[in-house]
Parts: sequence; structure tokens; C-alpha cells
Amino acid sequence: MTDQGKGRARRRDQAPRQTRPGYARLRHPFAPQPGFSGDEIAAMHDTALRILEDLGMRILLPEARAILRAGGAIVDDDSEMVRIGRDLVAEALRTAPRSIRLRAADPAHEQMFEPGAMLFMGGAGCPNVADRLRGRRPGSRESYIETLRLQQAFDVIHMLGPAAEAQDVPVHLRHYTIVGEQLTNTTKPLHIAARGQRQVLESFEMIRTGLALDEGAFTDGVWASTVINTNSPRLLDIPMARGVIDFAREGQLAIITPFCLAGAMAPVTVAGALVLQHAEALACIALSQMAAPGAPVAYGGFSSNVDMRSGAPAFGTPEHVRANLGSGQLARLIGLPWRSATGTTSKLADAQGAFETGMGLWSAVLAQATVTVHAAGWLEGGLTFGYEKFITDLEALRSLAELARPAPADAAALAYDAIAGVAPFGHFLGHAHTMERYRTAFYEPLNADLSNHGAWVEAGSLSAEERATGIWKATLDRFVPPPAAAEIRDRLAPWIAARTAAGGAPVEG
Amino acid sequence: MTDQGKGRARRRDQAPRQTRPGYARLRHPFAPQPGFSGDEIAAMHDTALRILEDLGMRILLPEARAILRAGGAIVDDDSEMVRIGRDLVAEALRTAPRSIRLRAADPAHEQMFEPGAMLFMGGAGCPNVADRLRGRRPGSRESYIETLRLQQAFDVIHMLGPAAEAQDVPVHLRHYTIVGEQLTNTTKPLHIAARGQRQVLESFEMIRTGLALDEGAFTDGVWASTVINTNSPRLLDIPMARGVIDFAREGQLAIITPFCLAGAMAPVTVAGALVLQHAEALACIALSQMAAPGAPVAYGGFSSNVDMRSGAPAFGTPEHVRANLGSGQLARLIGLPWRSATGTTSKLADAQGAFETGMGLWSAVLAQATVTVHAAGWLEGGLTFGYEKFITDLEALRSLAELARPAPADAAALAYDAIAGVAPFGHFLGHAHTMERYRTAFYEPLNADLSNHGAWVEAGSLSAEERATGIWKATLDRFVPPPAAAEIRDRLAPWIAARTAAGGAPVEG
Repeated sequence: MTDQGKGRARRRDQAPRQTRPGYARLRHPFAPQPGFSGDEIAAMHDTALRILEDLGMRILLPEARAILRAGGAIVDDDSEMVRIGRDLVAEALRTAPRSIRLRAADPAHEQMFEPGAMLFMGGAGCPNVADRLRGRRPGSRESYIETLRLQQAFDVIHMLGPAAEAQDVPVHLRHYTIVGEQLTNTTKPLHIAARGQRQVLESFEMIRTGLALDEGAFTDGVWASTVINTNSPRLLDIPMARGVIDFAREGQLAIITPFCLAGAMAPVTVAGALVLQHAEALACIALSQMAAPGAPVAYGGFSSNVDMRSGAPAFGTPEHVRANLGSGQLARLIGLPWRSATGTTSKLADAQGAFETGMGLWSAVLAQATVTVHAAGWLEGGLTFGYEKFITDLEALRSLAELARPAPADAAALAYDAIAGVAPFGHFLGHAHTMERYRTAFYEPLNADLSNHGAWVEAGSLSAEERATGIWKATLDRFVPPPAAAEIRDRLAPWIAARTAAGGAPVEG
Repeated sequence: MTDQGKGRARRRDQAPRQTRPGYARLRHPFAPQPGFSGDEIAAMHDTALRILEDLGMRILLPEARAILRAGGAIVDDDSEMVRIGRDLVAEALRTAPRSIRLRAADPAHEQMFEPGAMLFMGGAGCPNVADRLRGRRPGSRESYIETLRLQQAFDVIHMLGPAAEAQDVPVHLRHYTIVGEQLTNTTKPLHIAARGQRQVLESFEMIRTGLALDEGAFTDGVWASTVINTNSPRLLDIPMARGVIDFAREGQLAIITPFCLAGAMAPVTVAGALVLQHAEALACIALSQMAAPGAPVAYGGFSSNVDMRSGAPAFGTPEHVRANLGSGQLARLIGLPWRSATGTTSKLADAQGAFETGMGLWSAVLAQATVTVHAAGWLEGGLTFGYEKFITDLEALRSLAELARPAPADAAALAYDAIAGVAPFGHFLGHAHTMERYRTAFYEPLNADLSNHGAWVEAGSLSAEERATGIWKATLDRFVPPPAAAEIRDRLAPWIAARTAAGGAPVEG
């Protein structure tokens, strides 16, 4: 405990307290929870294999079709359809690694990306940002940097995500900002958007240049990951197929993520949505392994349902929960590390936002997702990154992280002697058993206000969302760049200047 | 789906939609999740038995001590200490029923209170109430009736609780209001406060009179339950001991609930708090079974931690989660149905409130609590019942209830044919597989707003808490008393008038 009392009104301009270590590297504390029977999951897997074998997937990139054909798949170039036999899927699952070392500029932020690990990534891929001081607005270079710093500041965020799009940076130059600012503001595992081969390869070069890595060091473990979204149902577009191939060949991590919304791009049943998700993910995993056997690749899914009236995605619903639990079973069936996600359609860091994100989060954790994406700060089904939402969500992540530490239950913790030493209707407040432990016995809230009503009124009757403003603001005000930031910036500056002068690199697709 | 679109701004004066049946009788959907190892739980049980055997419990009511002495316990009347051997505990656990039928005026609201059942009770025992229209104020007869009607209106609330205290009714007459208004506004399993023998027996008589039950019908199953709180550590006061005895002898349900806050009334370790909880609960179960072997009694606990600075209770914390999971293991070890609880210290139906209540709720459900108390509407660690909080919490209960229904995963649900029938990058919106199922495929939110940002702004940019106001208000405005209400009121009126004229019944203790 710090000298800033929990349970009291704290000054809102104070930086968050981070006195308790141990949220940087976590293992799942809960037994995996099934959402379907084992037979049902086996039937989903089998149906997905039938889909790949008999129906196939449309793959727009000729080179990807060529790789799959060379690997044994049946390709029709006119229709761009690729059918992949179950033997080929089995071979891909055999060569795909079970455990992947995620490198980071700060070794303390390295992670083992493998079954059993519990990693969190912030809200990602949002075109807009919002906070209570400046309102809702398009994402910019400034907000991109701010959201990176927020991700860097809290140890329960384990992998960087593209929180908010830097829309004021031209797209052919944007990857210079995306990678450059990650390298100079953070020291956690990096993220790259797969927007064509030139941008991807330049991004890799920036990492090598910025961190002064030679080729061998760059491929010793994974320095960058990307999210590969299929275009459900059953289509893989050019930049995504390109990304699978390029990340595989460069030994970087492709996180395969079909976005199967039951009732829209996927069957209306959760089971059917999972079948489609599974088929699409397996196709991409096969492509990855045929491009480079043993390449780091993750299973993943983001299946939920849509609002049947508007067609808009819904998150944190019972269907989302069930899809997450089923995805975990499918991931365990094939043995790969995998990505899940939470989310909300709420526009605010309010009760709906906390409830929906909480439902998705609990289900992802009970499904033993290796990484749970959108775990903090995601609003409006991904259209907006919320600064206050980021803070309120951290409370949930930190609480789950706390649960990942075993609680003492030895004889001393069972406290027979302490109980014997306190008279009936007495209290344990001053007892030696308490005094020896109270400083570290309990989780310390980041944003929750434990004070009573009177003290809370005196402090301004602030909601959790209102309190969160002070925390993100203090976090940004006090942000200190990593020690190597200036040096990295110096190394990158001439490189970026030259590439910019040469016209940058277009988004391909 | 109704004609009120989900995903669109709904008019706020509309009553909630309750078109989907099936939340009235639920079984746990999730496998029980441990919080401690089996050995650790066995050690907790053994340590609790040692405490009862060697240290004992102080029991203030002479009749209770006499019953325990007659049953074989070692009693010291000077110190009021009672030591209970493990053989006596074992015998009590042998006679305590595993399955209890909760009767209700409407047979559709009857429940089997047994391991595997998943019941929810609203926030209970609050001195104050709060809503956005009328502010925070002491509970009154009016708010007591309103909170009963809210509990009656939603089928996911399975047992009535004493939501808010009717502080404007004199305590010697208050049980007439408490029982009378339950009987005339609701048809769900009833709740009685154990405030002395005269009040309890009069309350039973009111149930028999109001529902026209003879003695045999009244003891055929359970018509009323009460919560028995110990005065931790290791004290049972007079009205609570009286309640255990009277409920046992009348065949009504005593839900034993030590309130063991780690660091204050219990050891600072969660394991130690659980040991104390377990010892106290076993002592009360023994008293119940010695008073009337086979009497309905439930195990229970409400262990969490305190804020070590203010001493105030905390809820929804990692410690609370772990205590709930451990309580479930202890309950399963002894085989009894049991009660858990969620809670929050938040002052509002905001993100903190949703998060903390959600953490407690998930852990209670993963612990397979037979009934989870305070599941909707509880604020400020129980000092206030929040009308908006009641509505926002219902969303979580309904979502968990939805998950208690199995999802289809047969061949039709796996949707191979539907997937075959939709071209790559097509959609399933108009497909027959979708059209046949979409009306009932998905959970329909009560309060969540799934609309996009523009539509949400147009509808007033309301937070979840603000939207909830319209829902509770419409629920109360449109409340229709149960069909038998007038008849029951007529039967009770002269009885209450006579008792009131005779001076009511004092709270004892």
C-alpha cells in the first residue's frame, strides 16, 4: 500500500499507483470452461475440414494460391477457389509451433505466447478516439502516441495493439509513424498492420534499424505480430494473404482472426459461426505453414452475433460468451496458442460498457485465450478508443491478474492461532497475524472508490468514468520515454526521411 | 424479438420487453471452478472442526445452548461458550436436507433449492434507496413496496429479499408491512427477517392466513426463508439463534451467512476468513439440526475483504472472488445447497458498480451458488438499494440465464449446408437458415443500447444508468398486482388491525 489511501478520495491529478509487482507475466488461474460438449467440438472441427475439402476458400492473391497448390491443395484459378484436404491441415498443425517467444526491447516485457499464458492487449483498430476533456474525434498521430503511452504505462497490458488509427498521417507514410512511435515510446512486443508487402517489409526494417538487430537477432523469436482478418465467409483478400506469407517468411507472428458475426457474415447459430471461423482459420494456418513450415502463427477468432434489426455487431452477449468458450475448445483441440477478444457496443465507459467488456473478458479468460484483444479502451464495437474506458477496463484486468497469483493456504494462512487469539465478537484489525500481512494482503484498486457516501460526495460525487479522466491524464503528464528512445529516434530519422522523400510505400490490396 | 427494435433508440417510457421465456428456473451452466486445491479445502474444513471442538462459539441465547448441550456439545454457561465435536457436526450434516422445495403463491415461481440450481435474489437489507428522479433517501414503506414490485416483475429474480428497510414503519409493526406487502404484491418465495420469536411466528401466521394454508400445507416445503448472520468472529446473538431454532421447528429455511471480512472480523487471509466462516456456519447448522433434525437449512457465506485504511467492506475484489470460489468448494464438500453473494461499494450504477457486481456474480456462478444474493440493485456495500442499479444488474443476470440454456449444436446448427449455400464474401442475412432462427437466436438486451454513435446521440446520449430510469419507472407504472392480491389483503386486514391494536410485536434481542 502506498501513502495514497485506498478507500479515500484521492487527488485526481495523481499518477496511478503501481506499487504491486507481478502483472507483467501471467498464467491462467482458472480451469478451462467448455461451452459445448467434446463431441460437439469434434463435429465442428470435422465440419470445418469438410468445408475446406469440399467447398474451399476463395483466395485472391495468386502467389498464395500457388503456394497452396504446391502444398497439395486443389486450386481453381478462374474462381480463385482453393480446396484444402484434411491431410494438409493436419500437416500444418504438426509444423505450427506451440510456443512462441515474443521479444521486446525491454526483456522484462518479453512473453511466452503459448497455451496457459494469459496476455492482454488494449482496444485496437479504432478509427476514432474519445475522452471527457476533448470529446470524440478522428484518431490522429497525437492520439496514436498517447494511446501507445497508456499501453506502455500499465504492466497488465502485455502486447501493443493499434489502438487508434493516425488518420492525419497519409496512408503511404503511416507505417513510419506506427512503427517509429512504438519503438520510441514503448518497450513491449510490437504490432504491425499487414497493408501490403512494401509496408510490412519496411516495418520489419524499421524494427531492425531502430533496435539495431541483425537478421539473426530479428528472427530469434518474434519481434512483431499482426492480426490477419479473413473476409468472412470464406474469402482471404490480397493484403491479408500477403501478410500471412510475409510474416511467415520473416518469422514474425500472424494472429489469424476470422470475424464471424452470427447472422451476418456467418450462420445465425453460434455453432455454425464457430465452424466457419474454424475453417477459415485453418486455411490461413495451412497457408502460413506452407509458406514457411514452423512459422509462428496463432489460432484465433472473434465470433459474436449481430443485432438482427440493424446488422450491427454485438459484443459481451451470451452468444459472444459461448463463442469464446467454444473457440477455446477448438484451440485446445488443435493445440495452438490463440487469440480471443472482448468488446462492447457502449458509447461510454458506463455500466453497459463495463458489463459487456466484462462478459467477454471473463469468457475469454475461462476459455484460456493466450491473448485477449480489445481488453481495455474499446468502445462502439471498435469505432472508438476511449481513454476513460481504458482506465476502467484496467481494473478488471488487474483484478484477474491478481487472481493469477496463488493465495496462501498453508497452516499460517488458515489462521487457527489468530482465531484462537481473538475473543468472540472481537476483531482482527490489530492482531499480529493481520499486521504482518495487511500491506500486501489485498488488491489495491486503480480507479474504484471504496469510500463511503459522505466522503464520496465531499470529493465531488464522481462516477468511475469521471475519476478515470484524472488517471489517464496524470499517466500521460508523467510519462517518461524509454531510456533508448532518443537513440532509436536518431537511428530512424534519416531512414524515415529518405523513404518519405522517395514517396513512401502504398497500401496494397 | 418484439416490434421494439433492439439496436435502435427505444422510447424510454416503454415497459421492458419480456418476450423470451425461460429465466424463471435455471440450472448452473458452468463447471464448478476451484479457488483452492482439494487438500487446502480439506484443511480448511478440518481447521473449522478444530475451532468448534477446541475453541467453541459464544452463543447468547440460553435455549440455544440448552439444545446444543442436549445434543452433546460441551457448554459453559458462564462464558456462554459452546464447543461442538466433529461427530456432532457430522450428524447434523447427515440430517440436513440436500434438496428443499421453495413454495410460492404462484406455482410457476416455485424452486428446488438444491445443488445445481442457479437462483438469484435482489439486493437486500439496505437502509436507504436511491434513484435518479428522487435522489438518495431512507427506505420507506413506499420504497419497500416499489422494490417488491421490481423483484416481482422480472423472472430472473427467483427469491424475494428485503431490498430496502421500511424505516417509516415502527419496528414493532414493521413485519406486518414486510410480510403483508410481499403477499399482496408478489407471488415468489418469501423472505422474513428473524427479529425475535414473536415477529417470526406472527409472520408465519400471516403467510398461513394470507394464503389460506393449513399447518400441513405450510410445512409441505418451505414458504419463507431468512438470513442468519453470525456476529463474527464466533458469536451468535439472541435474535439470530432464536431464528435458527424457530425456522427449524416450523420447517422454514434458515440461510446461514457468516459475514467474514478478511482483516476486520476475520483473519486477513482469505483462507483464514473461510475457515472462520465455515466454523460459524457449521455451528449454526448443528443448532438447526439439533432443534429439528431434517430442518431446511442452507450453508452460506459472505466473505470478502476490507479496505485496510478505513475498515470498510470491499466487494467484487479478487479476494471476494477467491472467497466465493472457496465457499463453493466447502459447500460441495459438505453437500448442502448454499448461498453466495455479489456486491459493490460504488455509489452509482456506473462502471465501477457494474465491474464489482460482475466480478462477484461471475465468481458466485462459477462457484455454483444455489442462490446469489444482492445480485441486482445493491450499492454502497449494502447501504443503499439503487433502482437504476437494479435494472443494469438485471442485464447480467439475464445474460447468465440465457447461457443456462443449451445452444443447438446438431448438424443443422453446424450449418454446413448454409455455409455451402452462401458465396465467399456473401452474407447470411436473408438465408433460409437465418430466417428460420433469427427471431429467437439471440439474447435480447433489456437496457443495453446497441445503436451506433449517431443514433445514440440523436436519442439523447444517455448512459446505461440514465436509460435504466425509464425502465424501472415503466415497470412500476405498469405493475399489475397478482390476481389474488385483493382477496389476500382482505384476509390479512382484520388480523393486522387486531395485532396492531394489541401493540404489535417487539424486536427481540
